[in-house]
Amino acid sequence: MQLHCSVFIATSLDGFIARPDGSIDWLESASSGTDGEDFGCKAFMDSVDALIMGRNTFEKVLSFPDWPYGDKPVVVLSSSLETRPDSVPDSVTLTSGSPQQIVERLMSEGMESFYVDGGVTIQRFLRAGLIDELTITLIPVLLGSGIPLFGPLDSDISLELVSSESFPCGFVQNKYRVVESSRADEPQ
Amino acid sequence: MQLHCSVFIATSLDGFIARPDGSIDWLESASSGTDGEDFGCKAFMDSVDALIMGRNTFEKVLSFPDWPYGDKPVVVLSSSLETRPDSVPDSVTLTSGSPQQIVERLMSEGMESFYVDGGVTIQRFLRAGLIDELTITLIPVLLGSGIPLFGPLDSDISLELVSSESFPCGFVQNKYRVVESSRADEPQ
Repeated sequence: MQLHCSVFIATSLDGFIARPDGSIDWLESASSGTDGEDFGCKAFMDSVDALIMGRNTFEKVLSFPDWPYGDKPVVVLSSSLETRPDSVPDSVTLTSGSPQQIVERLMSEGMESFYVDGGVTIQRFLRAGLIDELTITLIPVLLGSGIPLFGPLDSDISLELVSSESFPCGFVQNKYRVVESSRADEPQ
Repeated sequence: MQLHCSVFIATSLDGFIARPDGSIDWLESASSGTDGEDFGCKAFMDSVDALIMGRNTFEKVLSFPDWPYGDKPVVVLSSSLETRPDSVPDSVTLTSGSPQQIVERLMSEGMESFYVDGGVTIQRFLRAGLIDELTITLIPVLLGSGIPLFGPLDSDISLELVSSESFPCGFVQNKYRVVESSRADEPQ
C-alpha cells in the first residue's frame, strides 16, 4: 500500500483559514458569487479514502446545516472528545495518537489516501513529514488576523508546483507536491 | 497628480519575506535556477518614480555586493538613522513621519508612483489605506518562521486579482488591486 496524505484548503492572501473565532464568513462571501464552481473539491474528495481532521475543524463542520461528507470515513483527532455526538453519521470515528500512529492504524484497516484538514492537524502532519501534496486556494482578501494554515517547522519543506489555475472570481488555486521533508520518526 | 503605491515582493508559501535573521538564502537559492528571468522586476521598477523602504530593508540592500537601484530615488524611512551612509548614492534620502506625510512630501516634489518595500513599511502603508496594488511572487518553499509580509489590520482589505502567472521554476506571481480599504486619516 502507498500512503498518500493531501491538503485541500482555502486561505486568505495573508494565510488564514478562519478568523480568530473560527468564522469563515469571508470565504462564504467570496464563494457566493462563484456560480456553483466547486474548485475541484468533489473530485478531490472522491480521490481520498478518508478525511482526517482535528476537533476544531470537526466542531466547525457540525455547525454547518448539513453533513458535507456523505458516507466518506471521517477520522476526528481528539484527546478530549470521548464519544461521537449522536447527530453525526456512523462514518465518523474518534481517535488520538501521533500522526504516524494514526495513519498506520488506518492503513491496517485498508485505507491509504487521506485528506488532512484543519490548521493544527495540517501543521502536525507537515512536521511529521507525512504530507505529500497541498492544494491551496488563495482568496483575494486580507484579514489581518485569524487561524493560520501554516506554523513552525523543524526545517524547510521544499515544494514543487504541480499546477496553478486562476478563476474569474479572483481565486488562485496552486497545487504543490512536497519534494523534500524530514520524515524523521518513521522508517522509510 | 494621481498617487499610486505598489508592492512587488516575493514570499515563501507560508508568507515570509525573510528568515528571522533577515536572510533570503531560500529566495536566492530558488531564483538561481531561473535562467535570468526577472519576473517583471525591471518593468515594475521602470514604472515607479521612487522606492519607499524601511530601515531593515535598506540595511539588507546595503549588504548586497552592488547597489541594485541605479539612480532611482530611494526614500528610507527611519526615525533612528540620521545621516546617509557614505557608500550609498545621492539618490537615497532619509525621512520619517506617517505614511500620509511621507507621500504628501514626495508628491510635493513631483513624484506620484511609489514602490513600497519591506514588511514593516508595507504593513504601515496597508493600514494607512495607501497601497493600490500588490504583486506577490509565491516561492514554493515552507520556512516555518521568519519576517512576515502581512500583519494586523483594522479591517479586512478586499482585493481583485488582476493577473496570475506561473513559471517553470514553480514560482506563481499574482497581481492584486486593492478594491476596498479604509483610507481613514486622509481626505479623499
